[in-house]
Amino acid sequence: MTNNKPELYTSLSPSLLELYPVEKSIVVIIDVLRATSTIAAALYNGAKHIIPVASVAECINIGKQIECITAGERDGQIAEGLTYGNSPFEYPREFVENKTLVLTTTNGTKLLHMALDRNAKGIITGSFPNISAVCDYLLAQKQNVILGCAAWKNRVNIEDTLFAGAVIDRIGKHFSINCDSSQMALTMYNDAKEDLFEFMKLKNASHYQRLSGFGLEKDIRYCLTEDVANVTVVYEQGKLLAK
Amino acid sequence: MTNNKPELYTSLSPSLLELYPVEKSIVVIIDVLRATSTIAAALYNGAKHIIPVASVAECINIGKQIECITAGERDGQIAEGLTYGNSPFEYPREFVENKTLVLTTTNGTKLLHMALDRNAKGIITGSFPNISAVCDYLLAQKQNVILGCAAWKNRVNIEDTLFAGAVIDRIGKHFSINCDSSQMALTMYNDAKEDLFEFMKLKNASHYQRLSGFGLEKDIRYCLTEDVANVTVVYEQGKLLAK
Repeated sequence: MTNNKPELYTSLSPSLLELYPVEKSIVVIIDVLRATSTIAAALYNGAKHIIPVASVAECINIGKQIECITAGERDGQIAEGLTYGNSPFEYPREFVENKTLVLTTTNGTKLLHMALDRNAKGIITGSFPNISAVCDYLLAQKQNVILGCAAWKNRVNIEDTLFAGAVIDRIGKHFSINCDSSQMALTMYNDAKEDLFEFMKLKNASHYQRLSGFGLEKDIRYCLTEDVANVTVVYEQGKLLAK
Repeated sequence: MTNNKPELYTSLSPSLLELYPVEKSIVVIIDVLRATSTIAAALYNGAKHIIPVASVAECINIGKQIECITAGERDGQIAEGLTYGNSPFEYPREFVENKTLVLTTTNGTKLLHMALDRNAKGIITGSFPNISAVCDYLLAQKQNVILGCAAWKNRVNIEDTLFAGAVIDRIGKHFSINCDSSQMALTMYNDAKEDLFEFMKLKNASHYQRLSGFGLEKDIRYCLTEDVANVTVVYEQGKLLAK
């Protein structure tokens, strides 16, 4: 089918990203629990910018060179040597405003660097807290889109898939979608949308178990709530910025 | 959670297989449209055995050495140099009984060789035509299971995911499942089970489009029908055999 709509794909895991036309697309980095939710929260609360880095060592290193907050998690907890973690509640306005955050996370920052290495046409980050901003941005660009799920150590996860489905539910009709993963994400979202939190619990999502085990139910609820930090997050020259 | 149940995982694409404990598991090769449906049909109809090979060249080569039927497809059509294709209707009893079939397909045979290279504890093939046999076999073995979707050139597809979900729907409670992909497959299947064919059409599945474009709607219906070729298909020493 030929039409003038741009194409939309969903990559359910970083291991699958190479199957899609990254260099011709805007890639949306999706790491709902919790990197891209926390990124939205910090920028919404006035952080100057966020520098996403791949390793804890790099994070510590930048922390020695510039005035910044070093933050990150490994396996869901604050990484050794860093000061802050990956919870959206750690970054209220009174703490984060006008500050630079250097962030490393298990899955989200890794996927971002993969998209970068593959010369994505553009990179933004998305999660439920900024879903409207993501959708508005994608509609305005009129470019191909890859919804890139960060997953968990390359294993597909439910929450990132749900976010991809939510975006498709909102703006899918403006794109040409010949992609079973996108259809699956939409099906999942339609099943879950009445109550995303209950769906996560019910489906025994591995992330839900992991995080609720750390007492982070409040974080999970935030990360699944639409538009509580509704800012467009664009990656430009090494930094994530609010647009 | 520790319990005595064996573990079950779903690998939605060959690109994800390495994330799962292949060497400790029985891998079910799932290529609903159409390799593992056709394999079930041919063995159900009395084929002596099936030799799955990775390349068309290898298939032609074996055809020169032994008395056999050389068959296979690339991109959904009979591959050049081979005599038969990948439709279950090409292998009725009067044609295939007691014969050796050498088969190469785009995705299914590739995944099988990946499981083999990774020393899977056991390899069987499954699709809707032999779903009961698959489930009975897996229950009897009491081993870890990986439901391995062959996908389409590594892109996740709906029909293989639906079969994984159907197996989980039947026997999931006998396994420990900490795997979001399995939960997704089950959710998809529950949405689709009333009418798998209509679901495939509705979701605009890429395979459905591809095959229905070749006039293969009859094939698709067969491949989605439970227990029409209900035979256990086990891979042993280079051959797929009915057990």
